[in-house]
Amino acid sequence: MKAIQDYYPEEFARCFGCGRLNENGYRWRTFPTGDTTETRYTPQPYHMAIPGFVNGGLLASLVDCTATGTAAWAAYRAENREMDTSPPHRFVTASLRVDYLRPTPLGPELLVRGHVKSISGRKVIIEVTVSAGGEVTVRGEVITVEVPESMRPPSAPRPPWPGRSTTAMK
Amino acid sequence: MKAIQDYYPEEFARCFGCGRLNENGYRWRTFPTGDTTETRYTPQPYHMAIPGFVNGGLLASLVDCTATGTAAWAAYRAENREMDTSPPHRFVTASLRVDYLRPTPLGPELLVRGHVKSISGRKVIIEVTVSAGGEVTVRGEVITVEVPESMRPPSAPRPPWPGRSTTAMK
Repeated sequence: MKAIQDYYPEEFARCFGCGRLNENGYRWRTFPTGDTTETRYTPQPYHMAIPGFVNGGLLASLVDCTATGTAAWAAYRAENREMDTSPPHRFVTASLRVDYLRPTPLGPELLVRGHVKSISGRKVIIEVTVSAGGEVTVRGEVITVEVPESMRPPSAPRPPWPGRSTTAMK
Repeated sequence: MKAIQDYYPEEFARCFGCGRLNENGYRWRTFPTGDTTETRYTPQPYHMAIPGFVNGGLLASLVDCTATGTAAWAAYRAENREMDTSPPHRFVTASLRVDYLRPTPLGPELLVRGHVKSISGRKVIIEVTVSAGGEVTVRGEVITVEVPESMRPPSAPRPPWPGRSTTAMK
């Protein structure tokens, strides 16, 4: 089964968190599951904050990559097209908010769930939860935006995106 | 020169971001500079979001560890005592907010600056900026709290903390 990140163009598939082409990264993969998405990851023993509990920065990273992946998926959905069609969507984070509701135990697999809160033009807001052993320990809200021109490698696909311009794809 | 994290007790010095005893971690070090603090780090080439730009999760981690370190330093200051006195302070993050103002270029050393916004009981709020090449690219606000009992290893120092209880240190 292909993950959302498997549809990222090569130029956009090098993210340290979720880039399938980043050999030194985590290569997290996010999957659509009905109206939400899921990313699963079991932290390494050294990914700690205080012994026994998962590092908050790692949790923020998981929230971040799950959100940008979920946003891309949501953008295709909003245009009623498949993720293997062009031009591709790729989102980056404008603002990240993470609430650590309780300590996240280090050991169990984490389930990170993304939920689309709103889509408005190039901006998609995603709500994220992280659960360990069935209990939600972290809640996040992420404002994502389509990759701005200033971050696009010369070879990367460019707007106009279909459905967001009068000069939609041919 | 000793960093704030050099004063963390061993039980609390294993953080993946800033623990001096975490051999697989970043071992970030935060230094007081007048009324603020500084953490400096040059990301690795693979710490990217999109090629050429620093990964947002890594930036969130830098904000997070700088904030908890700054909070510990602020707590000692509020009690008019040195960081090598007992009992030690150690903060964790309750809520993290990170605004990515502009893309952070990958290459230059990053300067992460922590500023104490407020201290109230066990809660310390820290404002953080990340700069690259003299330009602020990220702004964060972090609500930190003294390590709760639920996260304390059995061997770790415990409250009551001086100045926060009627049974202050002798």
